[in-house]
Amino acid sequence: MGPHGDGDIENVESESRRRPISTVVFVIAMQAEAQPLVNKFGLSETSDSPLGKGLPWVLYHGLHKDLRIYVVCPGKDAASGIARIDSVGTVPASLITFASIQALQPDILINAGTCGAFKVKGANIGDVFLVSDVVFHDRRIPIPMFDLYGVGLRQAFSTPNLLKELNLKIGRLSTGDSLDMSTQDESLIIANDATLKDMEGAAVAYVAELLKVPVIFLKAVTDLIDGDKPTAEEFLQNLAVVTSALEETATKVINFIHGKTLSDL
Amino acid sequence: MGPHGDGDIENVESESRRRPISTVVFVIAMQAEAQPLVNKFGLSETSDSPLGKGLPWVLYHGLHKDLRIYVVCPGKDAASGIARIDSVGTVPASLITFASIQALQPDILINAGTCGAFKVKGANIGDVFLVSDVVFHDRRIPIPMFDLYGVGLRQAFSTPNLLKELNLKIGRLSTGDSLDMSTQDESLIIANDATLKDMEGAAVAYVAELLKVPVIFLKAVTDLIDGDKPTAEEFLQNLAVVTSALEETATKVINFIHGKTLSDL
Repeated sequence: MGPHGDGDIENVESESRRRPISTVVFVIAMQAEAQPLVNKFGLSETSDSPLGKGLPWVLYHGLHKDLRIYVVCPGKDAASGIARIDSVGTVPASLITFASIQALQPDILINAGTCGAFKVKGANIGDVFLVSDVVFHDRRIPIPMFDLYGVGLRQAFSTPNLLKELNLKIGRLSTGDSLDMSTQDESLIIANDATLKDMEGAAVAYVAELLKVPVIFLKAVTDLIDGDKPTAEEFLQNLAVVTSALEETATKVINFIHGKTLSDL
Repeated sequence: MGPHGDGDIENVESESRRRPISTVVFVIAMQAEAQPLVNKFGLSETSDSPLGKGLPWVLYHGLHKDLRIYVVCPGKDAASGIARIDSVGTVPASLITFASIQALQPDILINAGTCGAFKVKGANIGDVFLVSDVVFHDRRIPIPMFDLYGVGLRQAFSTPNLLKELNLKIGRLSTGDSLDMSTQDESLIIANDATLKDMEGAAVAYVAELLKVPVIFLKAVTDLIDGDKPTAEEFLQNLAVVTSALEETATKVINFIHGKTLSDL
């Protein structure tokens, strides 16, 4: 890149901020989290996926008025035997985010999914949060600077008008590859003052930053971390109802985004 | 893919097993781990990288006789401020593995790097292990089948002749995104009977399997997990000497691979 490269990138970015958003990609870890949204917008599964051949990834596409909507899921894990399950967690999420950005060139990414949350931070089951910023809680590297890299604090794309219009709760999201929470995880989540806990968000933010695409996060609460019930049980019990709430909010977000520029959000 | 797709893939795979290996990609997390190998084979940094523009990833290329050798590193983390540090861990490793396979179409991947190891399993500082298989120790998902997905057991490509010729130690590698080891990490590492502990291997194996490329792992021991010294201190103290041992073994592996087919390994 030449000496004026950075300036050129800024010009392109500021120009793209003034154009109406034309393409949105939802990155969603579980089929059960994606299906209500796929149904709502009548999206079709893409048969000859531009993300690559022979991969388990599932891509849906469709139009809402003139807004192109994609939903990408990591799909089922081939190595887990007959009872195939969704490829949750940071590695599959980062791969589908990377491949989706390269193939689909979205104006904005939306990582939507379920999460755990702290009731002491004002969260209830079924709440859908907009995420302010993200961190990791399971990347402990006790060497100066590497410790900050491990935490990986990144801002979500700022959408003050969307936040106000939809009257969403807002909070910091902490990501780790376990559904449960170890003592060390909990210490880091509390030290980082996070409200929400998921298994993908901070990895999606990392890739979005790498490829310079704005990303927002819609996270619906399936379990209260500081509640009485075991996480896995509460998660499975609330999954269906909460993904329905997630779909409702995602629909409002799509309706709000339609016809607007990035700067309008 | 048509009904005979799987058969076609098998034919291609068995054909590629009979051709001499022409392209090897080393996936290496830290610049300090890569540099001795880059120097040894006189590799050049690729200026117009086929892995993508504007990314921090560093790609080196060169020839050893007629064998194409690439070394790919995730590079420095832009978000960590002035004292930029290597992007270690599973997410950057999985992204560079994915992009390298797509752009460079290697016959075989080699994930080389440092690791911790258990002396009760026969490991000493400076040992270079060949890895038999890989697991994760920080993906606890206590739901049936998801638990197995989380552990993510995968075999390394079998290289009995290489193992015998180089007289390497062999062991199972367990991967997690922390340099230290929590009580939960330790329980899982022991339950999975792992000898080695690193921060990338199982993620590289996941991507290699996804894209159907054989992968082997060379892991050099910088710290003894069940030794007396703190991990971070021991790691930094031994890094230079151990990466030199890693380079020596990697050189022997390259010399062994040259002129051979995958089936000869």
